Amino acid sequence: MTRVDGRQKNELRPINITTNFIKHPEGSVLISVGDTKVICTASVEDRVPPFMRGQGKGWITAEYSMLPRATEQRTMRESTKGKVTGRTMEIQRLIGRALRTVVDLSKIGERTIWIDCDVIQADGGTRTASITGAYVAMVLALHNLVKQNKLKELPVNNYLAATSVGIIAEHGEVLDLNYIEDSSAEVDMNVVMNDSFEMVEVQGTGEEATFNRGQLNALLDLAEEGILQLIECQKEALGEIVNLIGPKGGNKG
Amino acid sequence: MTRVDGRQKNELRPINITTNFIKHPEGSVLISVGDTKVICTASVEDRVPPFMRGQGKGWITAEYSMLPRATEQRTMRESTKGKVTGRTMEIQRLIGRALRTVVDLSKIGERTIWIDCDVIQADGGTRTASITGAYVAMVLALHNLVKQNKLKELPVNNYLAATSVGIIAEHGEVLDLNYIEDSSAEVDMNVVMNDSFEMVEVQGTGEEATFNRGQLNALLDLAEEGILQLIECQKEALGEIVNLIGPKGGNKG
Amino acid sequence: MTRVDGRQKNELRPINITTNFIKHPEGSVLISVGDTKVICTASVEDRVPPFMRGQGKGWITAEYSMLPRATEQRTMRESTKGKVTGRTMEIQRLIGRALRTVVDLSKIGERTIWIDCDVIQADGGTRTASITGAYVAMVLALHNLVKQNKLKELPVNNYLAATSVGIIAEHGEVLDLNYIEDSSAEVDMNVVMNDSFEMVEVQGTGEEATFNRGQLNALLDLAEEGILQLIECQKEALGEIVNLIGPKGGNKG
Amino acid sequence: MTRVDGRQKNELRPINITTNFIKHPEGSVLISVGDTKVICTASVEDRVPPFMRGQGKGWITAEYSMLPRATEQRTMRESTKGKVTGRTMEIQRLIGRALRTVVDLSKIGERTIWIDCDVIQADGGTRTASITGAYVAMVLALHNLVKQNKLKELPVNNYLAATSVGIIAEHGEVLDLNYIEDSSAEVDMNVVMNDSFEMVEVQGTGEEATFNRGQLNALLDLAEEGILQLIECQKEALGEIVNLIGPKGGNKG
Amino acid sequence: MTRVDGRQKNELRPINITTNFIKHPEGSVLISVGDTKVICTASVEDRVPPFMRGQGKGWITAEYSMLPRATEQRTMRESTKGKVTGRTMEIQRLIGRALRTVVDLSKIGERTIWIDCDVIQADGGTRTASITGAYVAMVLALHNLVKQNKLKELPVNNYLAATSVGIIAEHGEVLDLNYIEDSSAEVDMNVVMNDSFEMVEVQGTGEEATFNRGQLNALLDLAEEGILQLIECQKEALGEIVNLIGPKGGNKG
Amino acid sequence: MTRVDGRQKNELRPINITTNFIKHPEGSVLISVGDTKVICTASVEDRVPPFMRGQGKGWITAEYSMLPRATEQRTMRESTKGKVTGRTMEIQRLIGRALRTVVDLSKIGERTIWIDCDVIQADGGTRTASITGAYVAMVLALHNLVKQNKLKELPVNNYLAATSVGIIAEHGEVLDLNYIEDSSAEVDMNVVMNDSFEMVEVQGTGEEATFNRGQLNALLDLAEEGILQLIECQKEALGEIVNLIGPKGGNKG
Repeated sequence: MTRVDGRQKNELRPINITTNFIKHPEGSVLISVGDTKVICTASVEDRVPPFMRGQGKGWITAEYSMLPRATEQRTMRESTKGKVTGRTMEIQRLIGRALRTVVDLSKIGERTIWIDCDVIQADGGTRTASITGAYVAMVLALHNLVKQNKLKELPVNNYLAATSVGIIAEHGEVLDLNYIEDSSAEVDMNVVMNDSFEMVEVQGTGEEATFNRGQLNALLDLAEEGILQLIECQKEALGEIVNLIGPKGGNKG
Repeated sequence: MTRVDGRQKNELRPINITTNFIKHPEGSVLISVGDTKVICTASVEDRVPPFMRGQGKGWITAEYSMLPRATEQRTMRESTKGKVTGRTMEIQRLIGRALRTVVDLSKIGERTIWIDCDVIQADGGTRTASITGAYVAMVLALHNLVKQNKLKELPVNNYLAATSVGIIAEHGEVLDLNYIEDSSAEVDMNVVMNDSFEMVEVQGTGEEATFNRGQLNALLDLAEEGILQLIECQKEALGEIVNLIGPKGGNKG
Repeated sequence: MTRVDGRQKNELRPINITTNFIKHPEGSVLISVGDTKVICTASVEDRVPPFMRGQGKGWITAEYSMLPRATEQRTMRESTKGKVTGRTMEIQRLIGRALRTVVDLSKIGERTIWIDCDVIQADGGTRTASITGAYVAMVLALHNLVKQNKLKELPVNNYLAATSVGIIAEHGEVLDLNYIEDSSAEVDMNVVMNDSFEMVEVQGTGEEATFNRGQLNALLDLAEEGILQLIECQKEALGEIVNLIGPKGGNKG
Repeated sequence: MTRVDGRQKNELRPINITTNFIKHPEGSVLISVGDTKVICTASVEDRVPPFMRGQGKGWITAEYSMLPRATEQRTMRESTKGKVTGRTMEIQRLIGRALRTVVDLSKIGERTIWIDCDVIQADGGTRTASITGAYVAMVLALHNLVKQNKLKELPVNNYLAATSVGIIAEHGEVLDLNYIEDSSAEVDMNVVMNDSFEMVEVQGTGEEATFNRGQLNALLDLAEEGILQLIECQKEALGEIVNLIGPKGGNKG
Repeated sequence: MTRVDGRQKNELRPINITTNFIKHPEGSVLISVGDTKVICTASVEDRVPPFMRGQGKGWITAEYSMLPRATEQRTMRESTKGKVTGRTMEIQRLIGRALRTVVDLSKIGERTIWIDCDVIQADGGTRTASITGAYVAMVLALHNLVKQNKLKELPVNNYLAATSVGIIAEHGEVLDLNYIEDSSAEVDMNVVMNDSFEMVEVQGTGEEATFNRGQLNALLDLAEEGILQLIECQKEALGEIVNLIGPKGGNKG
Repeated sequence: MTRVDGRQKNELRPINITTNFIKHPEGSVLISVGDTKVICTASVEDRVPPFMRGQGKGWITAEYSMLPRATEQRTMRESTKGKVTGRTMEIQRLIGRALRTVVDLSKIGERTIWIDCDVIQADGGTRTASITGAYVAMVLALHNLVKQNKLKELPVNNYLAATSVGIIAEHGEVLDLNYIEDSSAEVDMNVVMNDSFEMVEVQGTGEEATFNRGQLNALLDLAEEGILQLIECQKEALGEIVNLIGPKGGNKG
């Protein structure tokens, strides 16, 4: 029995990463994961937030938003509501935290990398697509600092990508849920991993359901499969910069 | 002496209108005017705001925003600030007011057309590009209501487009200012016109400068030239729907 | 056929400007334009906003508000709503921008002139009455700086006044619309001009209607007539200070 | 030794109450108490707040504000700050509570009387001047309901006025403090009383000081003197309406 | 006729003060006044608010809140509403003002004492219980500064406690109203006094009723009785610190 | 090598659950996990939020807050800031989601159970202590509905508790981190489980670190140990109610 869009249980949707999609930012991509499309930009600011000042280290922070009509039904703008929802805050904290695990913050000086993920079309998995795309935008921005001789080497130690996995009544464990699947999933899990299959974030949630250790392991196996492919797409998008990624600037590509 | 980007004084930047750019909305376009790029969507809601209820008429309202890195320097999100700026409010009121002049609101039932203009890349003229693009998105959404037999005919009486004109020290009156020109302009004027060269909005502002009646007329002549071409681009984007636009559904194309 | 209040099409309502209406501010007036009454004050602050610092120049900014019962129906306070409406923001930006065109900001030092326009009774034309009254309050405040030897000369190059004009179905083009006329006008235009009949702001809006070039010219002719008279009222209110207004402090009165 | 403005310890500043100062409200006054000037309006709304609905009774509520330049130094608008200060909230709660004690709310139907007190010039005692003036505006608005046959009789049982008293180092207990006196007072007390010398509100505050029972009694004696005179001014302003005030509509004037 | 809970008219509810109830603050208590329970903490911050800087003096400020279910019906959190109510602001201003009258602010250096009163269970008199408890928490915090040799002596000149008194139809004047009594009281008065029976705050309010001078005196007599007992409870809670309280550090215990 | 407070790696801190800690709520507890203390209340409201109306089902939602001085340093109130932080939102969404997995919402009618978790003293693990305590408060509230015959049986299918586990450099995987441990942990994981060792939420986060599958399994083993003991404490606190918990009201105790 195939999934609603004909995919296998361990099959990602088509991935597309267009680099330099927007003119002004130091790094930018348009990432598509199936019908989910996110503009990710990375902006360099030559100072850090107050709690980081004077430590000689940098900071990476993220903001996430959806266009009002990225969704099936129009969603009210958060600027109109006058406040950011809990869901948005969770997502932007997650993106920032994840990206900080692969960058050597002590090597970027007192700079902030602002990540902006703006979902222009949503079909499930917007937060994981944001992380996967934001990684590329961030590397491009940092590479620009290297090209301008503001950094000696690219301070990025690993690749990093994210995907969702979940349990659906009629299919069991599946990889990369689209919106219809996500809405009916009993268990939903977001996994952020690096290229050594080390986890930097696992968020598994039973939606009025639960999951046992065996199911957890099956979900993580699927996530590893997906993340391997996502990292391949990132490498393709980054081209020669791939040679600069890895601990001590060594070639891990 | 040519302009900073080599254009003639009466020359528009390249215009491109991609229809159905986003999957979910009833109408959507990506419009580019030079390097200014705006996603315009039109969403249909089956009710009207409280002050309109029970009159059997519809309403058109607009929201406008910029992605944080649409601009040269990153701009803080209005959702983060917790409030919408005066500039944004001025622009969204302008867009809604302008579009309402070409639609017969008594023929769309108690529905609201929500226009969302999200600037993904900014290089001057974002409000006028928004109006020109939003017009097309709105017509597409209304045409969808016709196709679904929710409306008997397309209740759009005219074309409508907008452009900016201004006075620059070294060039005098020019058409369609980009960001660099706009920053140094002495007089800046936004003009919204329909296809009969009737004005629906003229907003001329001296920036620590003034303008006389002769200059005003020269600016309006330039605006007419530009709007004629913008309406041609709209017609091309709309294809056969053009035959449905005009008073009483007659062919004005 | 005469207008609702018996006026000719080119006739202003009675104008009254009381100077020094409030005790504390450096400059203040109560202006009445018919039944529209606005308290305008000008306050001097010995610093400029952050974006102006260190340039040796001054700044002029304006705030506008209505008492809740200035209007026919009580309006909720913006402080109670917790936010300023788009209409208010548009108006206060307009007032500040207009006044800045007639003052030589490089001659007032790093000072801010805060203009406050508080409408205590509204009957149409509150924004144009605010500009006309605020001009006088501002000149009084600047003149106080001259009297205190904080400024060498009065850095005001021109007179500046504003009025509304519009098109009403039964009358055609008319000058200085009151609230009833404004509510039914097809086209509404606010014009801010100096004493050389140079425009500093023209905002013409079709309210579900449009206007052509001929109508625009007729409206501007009416505006010129009105502004000439408004400037005469300003001169009368300012008394001997009139001799200090004009480029290089010359006598333009 | 006389007070800073030459008054005796038990002497009020000059009082002036101009009725119908603003055109639109059902009741309005401009009250001056020395240099303190407040526009008080009373507006009738034909419904009550949610917590009062269905009880067949009315409600009286008040809002208070200062123009930015009512004060010696310009004060930031609460609408700009986006919130109402604690001081403002205290005052508007006090005004509403006080006025409700003299009106028979069960006789005004499900209506709300909105009181707006807007201080246009401040020199101490703005809250007590607001209450004294608001009382007159409220009576005028209720009397209008009687004249329109919406109420059978004037549902006002008593007069009500307010004043401040305080203890100043060099003078001891004094009546009706102006701003300079208020700033240096050790004890500050606001008293709201009706025409039977019954208190409806007593708020005495030691400002880094205290007061004993004897001082409290001396202060209340002064307050009684002042309130007697304030009620005389209210009666003069109300003219013949005075005959309608009192329990059961009897003549208490 | 006894009161609803069997008390005499001049009888306080049972008082209990547990010191050091919370681990982290410099001073903390849990105070119970009958079923009203408040956690009061005092925190020391080594700076003062901007308006106090550079004067070599300290400041005391207070915040007050209720847990959502301290009350019979759940109350919405002020953080959820996004704003603090007028009632809360009144109370926190009152607490801070009262405590400042008994501390020699010139002897605590440029420090702020933050008082937090969080009502965990409410049964009337929460603001007066807060003051009585906060006094003890504040003394504990200041005593900690003495023990750490940051202050030479305890800069507390007096005891300070607060209670409510009121007039109830069936009982006349009563001391320490619980919630049921408070809801039906005609007159409600909060009194803050020091151990010399000097008042620092008297707030008497007629709730759609009034009170005369005789009633006021009877209420103050009751308040004195109550406050005497409350100060005894404070002394018991403070133990040996009692010997350090009084002008010039003398023994007033 | 023992942990900072002398515990074994798989040892919980002392747990204490006091039921009916607050008088008004339908269910309440004070839970202590070491020095972390949280007041958890459960309130029953006889309606559901708009998005749930008309489905005949109930809803459970949670709010979480800390007293300002629950922490080592005083934290500014969210009501003062005017907004709820992202951290708070994450936690309250987690609590609500977790509790909903063990209650049969179709059996509680159109009612909302409001959970309030107010941390009065914080020493790490406040969100997991909140869940463990809130479960007991919620069962007490639902049991009250059974006792009042508003529900036929207790609609609670499972026990539910939560704990934190983490990886610390010098100790490896440990159970139930206190604040000092949490601050230095490389990996931090919150686990919510029911009494069948089924997970309802797993949130593992590398803090500038990562974790592999083996470490994940070791952490989950520790969590299972802790949760088993926490559920024993819940059973003890619930007493005889234990006999009513389980699918179909069967005895699972």
